[in-house]
Order: sequence, then C-alpha cells, then structure tokens
Amino acid sequence: MDISEDALLAAIRKVLSGAGPEVRVGVGDDAAVVSPGSGDLVLTTDALVEGSHFRLATTTARDLGYKAVIVNLSDIAAMAASPRYALCALTLSSSVDAAWVMELFGGMLSACDEYALWLVGGNLARGPEVSIVITAVGEVAPGRALTRDGARPGDVLGVTGELGAAAAGLRLAAGPPRAPDAGERAASARLARPTARVGEAGVIAAVGATAMMDISDGLGLDLSRLCAASGVGARLEVDRVPVAAAATRADALGGGEDYELLATLPDDAAVDACAQELQEAFGVSFTRIGVIIESGLVAVTSSGEERPLEPRGWDHFHDG
Amino acid sequence: MDISEDALLAAIRKVLSGAGPEVRVGVGDDAAVVSPGSGDLVLTTDALVEGSHFRLATTTARDLGYKAVIVNLSDIAAMAASPRYALCALTLSSSVDAAWVMELFGGMLSACDEYALWLVGGNLARGPEVSIVITAVGEVAPGRALTRDGARPGDVLGVTGELGAAAAGLRLAAGPPRAPDAGERAASARLARPTARVGEAGVIAAVGATAMMDISDGLGLDLSRLCAASGVGARLEVDRVPVAAAATRADALGGGEDYELLATLPDDAAVDACAQELQEAFGVSFTRIGVIIESGLVAVTSSGEERPLEPRGWDHFHDG
Repeated sequence: MDISEDALLAAIRKVLSGAGPEVRVGVGDDAAVVSPGSGDLVLTTDALVEGSHFRLATTTARDLGYKAVIVNLSDIAAMAASPRYALCALTLSSSVDAAWVMELFGGMLSACDEYALWLVGGNLARGPEVSIVITAVGEVAPGRALTRDGARPGDVLGVTGELGAAAAGLRLAAGPPRAPDAGERAASARLARPTARVGEAGVIAAVGATAMMDISDGLGLDLSRLCAASGVGARLEVDRVPVAAAATRADALGGGEDYELLATLPDDAAVDACAQELQEAFGVSFTRIGVIIESGLVAVTSSGEERPLEPRGWDHFHDG
Repeated sequence: MDISEDALLAAIRKVLSGAGPEVRVGVGDDAAVVSPGSGDLVLTTDALVEGSHFRLATTTARDLGYKAVIVNLSDIAAMAASPRYALCALTLSSSVDAAWVMELFGGMLSACDEYALWLVGGNLARGPEVSIVITAVGEVAPGRALTRDGARPGDVLGVTGELGAAAAGLRLAAGPPRAPDAGERAASARLARPTARVGEAGVIAAVGATAMMDISDGLGLDLSRLCAASGVGARLEVDRVPVAAAATRADALGGGEDYELLATLPDDAAVDACAQELQEAFGVSFTRIGVIIESGLVAVTSSGEERPLEPRGWDHFHDG
C-alpha cells in the first residue's frame, strides 16, 4: 500500500456516512456500539476472494464493493429480516492503492444507502490477494425469522425473478469481446450488481411461506439443501423455471450468484397472491416451479417426463 | 480441499456446540438468529491472514483457531462488554486438509467455551492463502460501553499485566532452536495463546475508567491513538511500564499482540482500588504508567529525563 494504516483509516472514516440514531459508536474505536430494537438479530458473514470470486482485471472496485454488501444482504433477506449494521474485514494486496480502496468503499456505501444499512466497523490487513469479508446484522420480529427447514409435503415451490443471468454474464465475460444485445447487457449487469430481495422477502413471509432461502449456488444445489434441512423431497417442474434473457435452461438450473429467493408456500392461492403483490410493489415476478413431496428430488418436464434431479451447482471447493 | 463444501460444513456442524438458550438458529441456514438481551450491542471484526499474521509451518491449527477468537474478544473486552456471539469466515487453501480445519475449529471452540461465546455461523471460501476472519458480538448495559475518547488531562494511565511477551515470543520463534527457560516458554505461550481481559475490563470500568482500549499494535502507537481520540496528550513513565519475562523494554513499548488493556482512571486511588481487585479476582497486575496531559506525547524516565514519545508499533501496512 502507498499509505499507512492510520492514514487509510482516516481517509475511510471521511467517506463513511455519519452515525445514525441507533449507532452510538461507529468506526474508529475498538469496536462499534449499536442500540438495536427489541427484535431477534440475524447474523451472517460472506467473503469475496480474489481469484475465487473475482479478478481485479475484470471488475471495478465500485462494483466489487457493492456486490460484497449485496451477497450478505441476500442472506439477511432470505431470513425475512431487515438489514441494520455491517462490518467489513478487508485484506489488501500490493496490487491495489488507496484510490482503489476509496472506490471500493464508495461501492459498499452505495449499497448501504440503498438498503438502509449502517457500515459501523471494519478491519484492514495485508495479504497476497485482495479479499472482502462483510458481516451483516439484520433484525426481525421475535420468532419470525424464516428458516429453510419448514417445508412440508404439499407445499408449492416458488421463485422470484428469473434465473441464470449471472451464469450467462460470466460466460459473456469469458468469451471474445463483442457488442452485447440488451439481454446480454442485462445479464452482465446482474453479475456485477445483483439485487438483494429484501422487500420481496417481507411479502413472501407475509403470505405464509413455510421455508425460504436465497439461490446463491444454483437452483438444483440450493433446492437440495432446502429439502435436506426440511427432511422432504421436491418435484421441480423444469420447464416452468423462469430463464433470464441471454441465459440457457442449464444456466437457470445450475448457475450460481442469482440471489433470487426460493420459497415454499402452503398452496397455489398463496403463490398467486404473492405474485400479484410482488409485481405491483416491485415489478418482480414470482413463479410456481414445483411442489414439495415426501422424499426424493425429481425433475419433471411439461411433457411429463421424469428424471432424478442432480443437485449440480457451484460448490466453492470443487469449482475447477 | 479433499472434501466438498457441504461435507465439510456437515463435519463442522458436528463439532459445534449446540444452540444455547439465546440462539434460535445456528450454523446451517442462510444466517444465524439470536435473541439478545436489552443491552447495547458491541460489534467487531478481525482477521488472521497467512503470511501476514501467521505461517502454517510454525503454528498449530488449534492455537490459530484459539487466537483468532481471542483477538476479537480483546476488542469486545476493551469496550467493557461481555462476549455473546461469533461468526467465522474462513478462506482455505490447498495447503490445508479437512483434519486441519477440524483442529482449527477445535481451537476456536475451546476459546468460545472459555469465554461463554456462541459460534453461530460462518462462511467457507477458497483462496491462495488461509485466512480466518472472526466477527464477534458483545453486549453491554445501554450507554455503558467504554470508548477511547473519554480521557481528560489529570487522568492516570494504567495497564493490565506485563507487556512485550508476544514480541519476545516472536523473536524466539525466529531464532535458532534451543531449550527455552521458564520466561521464554511463557513468552512463546503468550504469543500462541493470548488472553482476552474480559473480566478485568469489567473491574476497570466499575472503578470509573474514563477511556479504555486494548494494546494490539504496541503501547506507544496505541497510546497515541487513545490520545488522538480523546484530544489530549500523555506523559508516559517509561521505567514503570511492566516488562514481561524474556522481553526487553523496547518489546514492551513497541511490540504488538499483547492484548493487555490500557485505561485512564480519574486518580491514583482508583488505580490502587483497581490493582487490588484485579490481583484478588484474576491474579493480574494493574500498573500506573503515566498521566494524561493537555497535549503532546512525552516519555519520562525515573531520573526525570524527558523525550518525545515516538508512537512506534505494529502498522499492518508498513511491517516490512
């Protein structure tokens, strides 16, 4: 780095938003101090590691900072909670300078502003590669967090938005440079700046969802995890899975990083009510994509053909 | 890694302690859910990065896991708060296997047990080097967190324990192998397994401390930070600084990673009361090492000689 730790911390403090009404002590002391409401707290941590999740050559610092926050907020949303506070542990290499770090914070703060999240603390370390670990704290009414273990046979599976955009964006980034069409531009934007479905999660919980999670590692793998947690199986109606523009059905079933919400609802009426409200409030679709069964993971096509559903997806330890 | 992410997560879940009365959802869902008391929350995050903070060849996984927790608890203690929950974001390289990771968790859990902390969630990622980012959440009575900005001229500076042991331990580890004496063994143990002064912090707060922080980057540098935050100066009585066995005075003044507490108290009577109670309750010393003045950082010897105090210490961006 071209700057000392204390000087960098001082520069970072200047770009941070001031302390909110609930933030008693922000960045600069041994720890942050906040006065939360009386709800349950939802705690999550997620990392973006250079080489594994991004390359410096193909991402901007601002997009990276934004995304590092969003991937955590997606986990907060998946519990039907509201984001409150975040902490950031940065490891910086000699490949980045202070200006890059300021841009990174710019991206993080832009996500924080959008989702009413306070960045209250952090840590700086040196290492051979850049990594960004965000920890987010959310709040939810006592006992109302929506876990992934409540799905019951007969429940209907629904998903927000369209899947596969991030996988398509990754493929486009790896391919030869050319002028993208509108769908391809949307896919690339989705990869760089995903959306955390925070407001949408509240609606899904309110219509009586029995289980929910975000799709970060691919629909097949994440659905298998939801089923394992609930002790149930699923019939996935593969031709109903909404496929994003520029994406293939394989992208939609196996691609990671979409950060859409997968939920189980008690019946079709709840799915319809949810779909209507999400469309009206957020312009976001909600699609029935299958049902929960006693056991087994089955993929069924619109022509009625069945095969076992392989929980393929993005396993961070077996990705090549 | 020799194991998939889901398999490793399953193995980790088995070694984690069960959910406590305040933990509604632990590891395994999108996020953890906890029901805290009505106090303020204290939030901190700290990283141990391979190459920068440790080398795999010279540390055991168990010591590393223990220390990763303790360095965070030291920040919680420095706010006079009680530890409650922790999250762990691990980046694993191909140099470590599943058995190593289990040992790492063994060390983390041993620290969690000792300090009544619940490890409620985490994240696994792959990278070129191992890093361990712990985020800890503590609790403190509303408005009672002890920050570093409350020191006033006339306050007396006190420090827990003895300083320089970690620096001495580092020097011993770098030197040729030989049979260590008792002091050297203690210094090495202190480096590998530091103590978080959680109980001690409560006593220091109760006798009326005006400011407190933990000494993680060296007494000189950390004292300069406390003074900057409080808008004051300090006269450090260098010959009174307690020096650990096997350490030099330079280790005690400039060496990092001691994790002792530096506090300002209203008068000598408060220091004496604190010293007596810490000795009786914890067998830990508390030593007057100087006074807070209007401005400037001055080192004064027992013979009355004065010189400017250089805030040397461990800056993670300028460590060579």
